[in-house]
Amino acid sequence: MRTQVAIIGAGPAGLLLSHLLAERGVASVVVEVRSRAYVEKRVRAGVLEQGTVDTLVAAGVGERLIREGLPHRGIELRYGGAGHRIAFEDLVPGREITVYGQQEVVKDLIAARLAAGGDVRFDVGEVTVHGADSDAPHLVVDGERIDCDFIAGCDGFHGVSRASFPDGMITEYERVYPFSWLGVLAEVAPSADELIYARTGRGFALHSMRSPTVSRFYLQVPSGDRVEEWPDERIWAELKARLETVPGFTLATGPVFEKSITPLRGYVAEPMRHGRLFLAGDAAHIVPPTGAKGLNLAVADVRVLTAAIADWYATGATGGLDAYSATCLERVWRAQHFSWWMTTLLHTFDEDPYAQRLQLSHLDYVTSSRAAATTLAENYVGLPYGDEA
Amino acid sequence: MRTQVAIIGAGPAGLLLSHLLAERGVASVVVEVRSRAYVEKRVRAGVLEQGTVDTLVAAGVGERLIREGLPHRGIELRYGGAGHRIAFEDLVPGREITVYGQQEVVKDLIAARLAAGGDVRFDVGEVTVHGADSDAPHLVVDGERIDCDFIAGCDGFHGVSRASFPDGMITEYERVYPFSWLGVLAEVAPSADELIYARTGRGFALHSMRSPTVSRFYLQVPSGDRVEEWPDERIWAELKARLETVPGFTLATGPVFEKSITPLRGYVAEPMRHGRLFLAGDAAHIVPPTGAKGLNLAVADVRVLTAAIADWYATGATGGLDAYSATCLERVWRAQHFSWWMTTLLHTFDEDPYAQRLQLSHLDYVTSSRAAATTLAENYVGLPYGDEA
Repeated sequence: MRTQVAIIGAGPAGLLLSHLLAERGVASVVVEVRSRAYVEKRVRAGVLEQGTVDTLVAAGVGERLIREGLPHRGIELRYGGAGHRIAFEDLVPGREITVYGQQEVVKDLIAARLAAGGDVRFDVGEVTVHGADSDAPHLVVDGERIDCDFIAGCDGFHGVSRASFPDGMITEYERVYPFSWLGVLAEVAPSADELIYARTGRGFALHSMRSPTVSRFYLQVPSGDRVEEWPDERIWAELKARLETVPGFTLATGPVFEKSITPLRGYVAEPMRHGRLFLAGDAAHIVPPTGAKGLNLAVADVRVLTAAIADWYATGATGGLDAYSATCLERVWRAQHFSWWMTTLLHTFDEDPYAQRLQLSHLDYVTSSRAAATTLAENYVGLPYGDEA
Repeated sequence: MRTQVAIIGAGPAGLLLSHLLAERGVASVVVEVRSRAYVEKRVRAGVLEQGTVDTLVAAGVGERLIREGLPHRGIELRYGGAGHRIAFEDLVPGREITVYGQQEVVKDLIAARLAAGGDVRFDVGEVTVHGADSDAPHLVVDGERIDCDFIAGCDGFHGVSRASFPDGMITEYERVYPFSWLGVLAEVAPSADELIYARTGRGFALHSMRSPTVSRFYLQVPSGDRVEEWPDERIWAELKARLETVPGFTLATGPVFEKSITPLRGYVAEPMRHGRLFLAGDAAHIVPPTGAKGLNLAVADVRVLTAAIADWYATGATGGLDAYSATCLERVWRAQHFSWWMTTLLHTFDEDPYAQRLQLSHLDYVTSSRAAATTLAENYVGLPYGDEA
């Protein structure tokens, strides 16, 4: 068969790309090795930048997001026995974040694609990439050849897309942190209206939420810890020790229904393009979750790629395609830096006392200087896209 | 003999303290192991914060500073083939820095102390500290006992004051950087009106000045380099390589009349007080020079100490004395963090490629975000003193 854009991966990047391309009159096929049920339940990020929300709403897939998503106009930094609010409404007026699980975005996008008659194939077997550097790129999916003009690699860090680049073409940049995050979902109403980023001598903790009845928590744990080492009672004891550090705050507890451990790291592959093959989202870059940037970066990539491909079909211009990698990477590196910044600001490292005092001074500065607080706020809600500038 | 405050060290901290105390009716003696000629020629910092200038002017020792000092309302960050101005007049209106050599401040203060009949003793021999934790503190200077109510240790990093604290009382915090600064004074007009902080793959360079006819330069050099390894022609070649990186900029050269190499490090001793003995300036803390904070921190310490001592004489209150160390250390750690921040932003480290890309992204952010540029500007011109808040 033949399509215009063959998309590998039905995560948020691949699905949104297919949707946005359809809006511009470009046909695509999405192939996904996982089942629909799997991708619709996969727990990932839950904080959407203002621009991500705007993008989804403008694309007509934001109806449930607006109805069920929880808009937040601030976060709390908690350390040294006190909480300090970073007030978005004051620092970056008109911009906010929305708490809405990534799997909900995926559900909405799948429903929209299928309703529009989009070709989304789950449970496929082997996918291979061919002819990326030719004028006849194609996938072979379970033996079937899918000819296309472009291939979009939206298949995550472990996908086949990046692995299909010629040996030596990609330069990899990586930062591995000496700790992981234990993520927990619990059936209990959030104990606070906003996210709480807590720095303690015991390590970092994050109080978040998914809905008015589901709380989301993260705990900094040593690298190598396994989920089995964290029974529910230990999780609650540690969350209380790290979050009940200000007067009057009590952490509500409830049944834990999901827990997993994720190593923290930053990773960037450059370039993000090889001929007719374009990487987007986690296939090209990973950020530590502290800045809540992973999903949002994927959306930004897809915006750039959609415009470049649509432009090529409309006018034959290759400028957008040629600039794709550099355009995306500028935002990617901004997000890498911000995510590193948030991570080092809040986590306990096995570091010398001088570094620990720098960290506390930095926290005091971020919570007392309007300019410093604004740097956090403007990165957190998301800097403007280049195409808006 | 007897005085009220015995001050060890006739650098800017000790001299200013003596001067400010005299204004408040408190007598002091300053003892200095170096000669007057030596301290008046010792080349050190040259960038005065707004608050430092205000303090000196308010104390009546700013007449020549205002006449000869060079007010600057911005600095340039130069990297990637372009210069980017951090505009103080826009970002922190009404605040600026003044380029005026530390030794000129010292000359002005010595002249003022001597004109007022102040007791400043140069070329003293051995100085020892006694009874710091008693009600009868005193110095012994070349065998002569100087009784006093308070001892101020303003004798720099290698002085006797901090060494007089009981063993184990001080906690030391230190960060040693893997490079040094080669500082150069040359008889040539500055090649630009403002300071240029240049980040290059060859290392950091700073273009500064002391007067309309004297330029001041710094080059990042490997730790362990000796001045003999840097003949003038090598210095100029390296300065050109690091500074002539933007179209139209040519570095003017001239006779070098001073050069020295200084390791970069951060250091803090806590607490800054032992009984009746108070440390101020370099005796308690060192910052890497990138943020131009060393002299300015000494002035801030002296302001706090003057107020605390004068308050004790006026009312018997010990609150200011008891708070001295914590009050000073808050600003000290802010300066440590800012100095570390500027150092890591601009220097070449022997680091992995990921860290190098973070650095470039950080520079792009500082030069494109108003909030980020403001964090640089407000720290550089100097955050408000606590006593102004």
